[in-house]
Amino acid sequence: MALPSLLSHSRTRSSVLREPLRQGGLRALLAPWDPPSVHPHDRAAERACTPPSTGSSPPPLDWTRLGSRTISSGAGMSLTQYGLTNHTLTSQRRSYWTLCPQHSSFGPPAEIATKEAQHSVDDSFGVQQRTFGSAAEPIQRNPDYSVLNSDDVSYFKSILGDNGVVQDKDRVAVANVDWMGKYKGASQLLLLPKSTNEVSKVLAYCDSRRLAVVPQGGNTGLVGGSVPVHDEVIVNLGGMDKIISFDNVNGILTCEAGCVLENLSTFVENEGFIMPLDLGAKGSCQIGGNISTNAGGLRFIRYGSLHGNVLGLEVVLANGTVLDMLTTLRKDNTGYDLKHLFVGSEGSLGIVTKVSILTPAKLPSTNVAFLSCNDYMSCQKLLLAARRSLGEILSAFEFMDRQCIDLAMTHLEGVHNPLPVSPYKFYVLIETTGSDESYDKAKLEAFLLRSMEDGLVADGVIAQDISQASNFWRIRECSIEATQGCGGATSTYS
Amino acid sequence: MALPSLLSHSRTRSSVLREPLRQGGLRALLAPWDPPSVHPHDRAAERACTPPSTGSSPPPLDWTRLGSRTISSGAGMSLTQYGLTNHTLTSQRRSYWTLCPQHSSFGPPAEIATKEAQHSVDDSFGVQQRTFGSAAEPIQRNPDYSVLNSDDVSYFKSILGDNGVVQDKDRVAVANVDWMGKYKGASQLLLLPKSTNEVSKVLAYCDSRRLAVVPQGGNTGLVGGSVPVHDEVIVNLGGMDKIISFDNVNGILTCEAGCVLENLSTFVENEGFIMPLDLGAKGSCQIGGNISTNAGGLRFIRYGSLHGNVLGLEVVLANGTVLDMLTTLRKDNTGYDLKHLFVGSEGSLGIVTKVSILTPAKLPSTNVAFLSCNDYMSCQKLLLAARRSLGEILSAFEFMDRQCIDLAMTHLEGVHNPLPVSPYKFYVLIETTGSDESYDKAKLEAFLLRSMEDGLVADGVIAQDISQASNFWRIRECSIEATQGCGGATSTYS
Repeated sequence: MALPSLLSHSRTRSSVLREPLRQGGLRALLAPWDPPSVHPHDRAAERACTPPSTGSSPPPLDWTRLGSRTISSGAGMSLTQYGLTNHTLTSQRRSYWTLCPQHSSFGPPAEIATKEAQHSVDDSFGVQQRTFGSAAEPIQRNPDYSVLNSDDVSYFKSILGDNGVVQDKDRVAVANVDWMGKYKGASQLLLLPKSTNEVSKVLAYCDSRRLAVVPQGGNTGLVGGSVPVHDEVIVNLGGMDKIISFDNVNGILTCEAGCVLENLSTFVENEGFIMPLDLGAKGSCQIGGNISTNAGGLRFIRYGSLHGNVLGLEVVLANGTVLDMLTTLRKDNTGYDLKHLFVGSEGSLGIVTKVSILTPAKLPSTNVAFLSCNDYMSCQKLLLAARRSLGEILSAFEFMDRQCIDLAMTHLEGVHNPLPVSPYKFYVLIETTGSDESYDKAKLEAFLLRSMEDGLVADGVIAQDISQASNFWRIRECSIEATQGCGGATSTYS
Repeated sequence: MALPSLLSHSRTRSSVLREPLRQGGLRALLAPWDPPSVHPHDRAAERACTPPSTGSSPPPLDWTRLGSRTISSGAGMSLTQYGLTNHTLTSQRRSYWTLCPQHSSFGPPAEIATKEAQHSVDDSFGVQQRTFGSAAEPIQRNPDYSVLNSDDVSYFKSILGDNGVVQDKDRVAVANVDWMGKYKGASQLLLLPKSTNEVSKVLAYCDSRRLAVVPQGGNTGLVGGSVPVHDEVIVNLGGMDKIISFDNVNGILTCEAGCVLENLSTFVENEGFIMPLDLGAKGSCQIGGNISTNAGGLRFIRYGSLHGNVLGLEVVLANGTVLDMLTTLRKDNTGYDLKHLFVGSEGSLGIVTKVSILTPAKLPSTNVAFLSCNDYMSCQKLLLAARRSLGEILSAFEFMDRQCIDLAMTHLEGVHNPLPVSPYKFYVLIETTGSDESYDKAKLEAFLLRSMEDGLVADGVIAQDISQASNFWRIRECSIEATQGCGGATSTYS
């Protein structure tokens, strides 16, 4: 099936989101929904959300807060991000601003709501804006798609059995909403296939009936790619969770797409290997979804992209065709390497059903340090220094800001601030993994000492045991969870 | 332009070679040529090439040697590979056999020329056969392609200038033959564009005239992918050799596709980085060709596949369309990641004109060891042990056999045998790179000591200076060059 017809058959949120930015931006594909209640913590932020008077024409929307945060640093850098909705148009507009570090002085805080003011700020601060969503274009349901009927449900039951076809309102409601509670679809049906054959039959049938489909894994994504826009049939791969084989000589794991990442980690660690990616959502996210979204994760700096680690895929196309690219060769240059098209395409070209992936050897020595920095530039310089001095043992370098720590302390249970008296604005978690404990620890300590002498690190602590290391990691891994406590928000520095 | 029409427009050897194996095998696309003269060293091997009597019907070909080598090891493992030609049909058939390691005893030597005998060997030894080429089907020139005429040459001169259009017989003859002298095309024209715009105009014109094209880089490939089959116009990217930019913070290099790999290595090393791949052919091969062939190379074990290191590409499609995917983002999940289609597709979908690639930090400490092993299984176990014990500092693990060393000593000037009195059959070169000289050396020495005590390593030496290390590497990197001295052959173990 040629690419264009694939797109026309499986036009989910993800496939529309795949329109290149240069063609006018991504369109928000949000169905009508109710905004979350305002968290008391965030009342001050709510007021900051009202577009300030800048002398330019106010935006055409009646802005209502979804979630926001304003950050001002002593270095004169300010960043505001907010999610907005206009209920009358039942769509969302979200923008974010990033401040480029090449300017030594960032000028006054910039809270901009109109394009004209935006550009003048852009010129002086080197601000890069990316706009997502259009409040002017509500996303209409495509009338070419059919509406589910009882015959369809009967057919699915004949393929998947009664347990594989879920119409229970509560269960379907959960599958209709993303993890952050921002996006809500209106699907009436959740399907739970248990084999590639079942996925193939389901998709072939949907193709023949022109029923829209949204593939779903752990539903832990933060950008609305795993839930319906309208009434698409949800095909959840959670029932396909078998490990098929493990080559414990080369560290090549072959498994079904519905395997939860944490379960795979536990399995391969027992064999002396580790998964090449790690996420805060590992307890729920599935490897098929990780691959379909080209997840990066906490080990990205060490083990790189999934494009480099995935060796093979089995994928079911929109018309039910099973594409078997499930090789376990470390490098196979025969033919076109089509599997890469499915890495990061969010299920819009096909549903990943099986995976073969390279797993690195588990190394015996792990060290974790939690550091604070005076300013953002020091964090960048610290990264460069870490790459050179720690080099081959550097396995994670995670950046957090003051608000992130505060949110974690406020909303996460059982975490402790590693640097309780630290007045600093920026924090870095560094992890090293290597083959010799004494060498690695000495290397890390020497690096931290030099960094403090050079003024890159203001304060810091190295974990003395697993419990401390886990605490450090929890602050970072659960940061998204912590933001939920204030209604949800993110910020970006570059 | 949809994929199918791309293929029909640019049907080079590479594109035909891309037919999936399951559809009946790859077809050899060799034009008539004269076999190389028989090297005196190889007379014995030549006799071994005659298909033995096995009781089955002899093959329908009149076998003539192209190049061969028979290896028998004391472990009872034997592998014969030979290239054969049947001049009357002017085509080639080449097969290789790999013996799977799961059998503890590999049985008697297997020199098989017929399928029936092959299968019985397969069953007992777990032999996997891959057959390339068909002696029964000579490759005819596709009559849909036009023949070059003087108007075409005039047009190319108007685009590229006189210096960019080469019809000189000697220069064109060099471009018609691959590095090993095995494949010879019959092109009449060599083009040397200097910009993406020129490549675009050339391809657009060839598309309109239905002139077949073969893209060419350094022409160092060993499988005939960079030379014409018949009279395709050769488009050589050697004139596009500029470095466009280098981000010395993140180590991201952007350059034109005709940059020679060694030149790029020198450039980035001056900046404190290294190229993620290294090849014996680095003095001639070009980065565009490396990417188009998804080259692995000597650093593959450390830095992985080009699919993981290439960040962006600019490619010109067969109809002249310039596809700009030249991002320098470390991870960009917007849109479909189409660039991966061009990695490893040998120019059959488009010509790579620019590249952005991630370069790792250059680490200060490098150690190289040259070891000998008793048998092949020890080499495999040594690899596993190296991955665990050396882990993060392991940067190369290169396997060679006795014949490889002998060929190097015979045909390469200025190399010395690191283990002159060693009677062993198999050799391994191990390289480590890390951030601390003393730690790394101690780690390597401890690993080698343990390996000797465990019986994996029979003998070995660690390079004491750069000169020794270069000598070790020269044996490995120039092994293909050394085989040319006996008419050319390769062997495979698995």
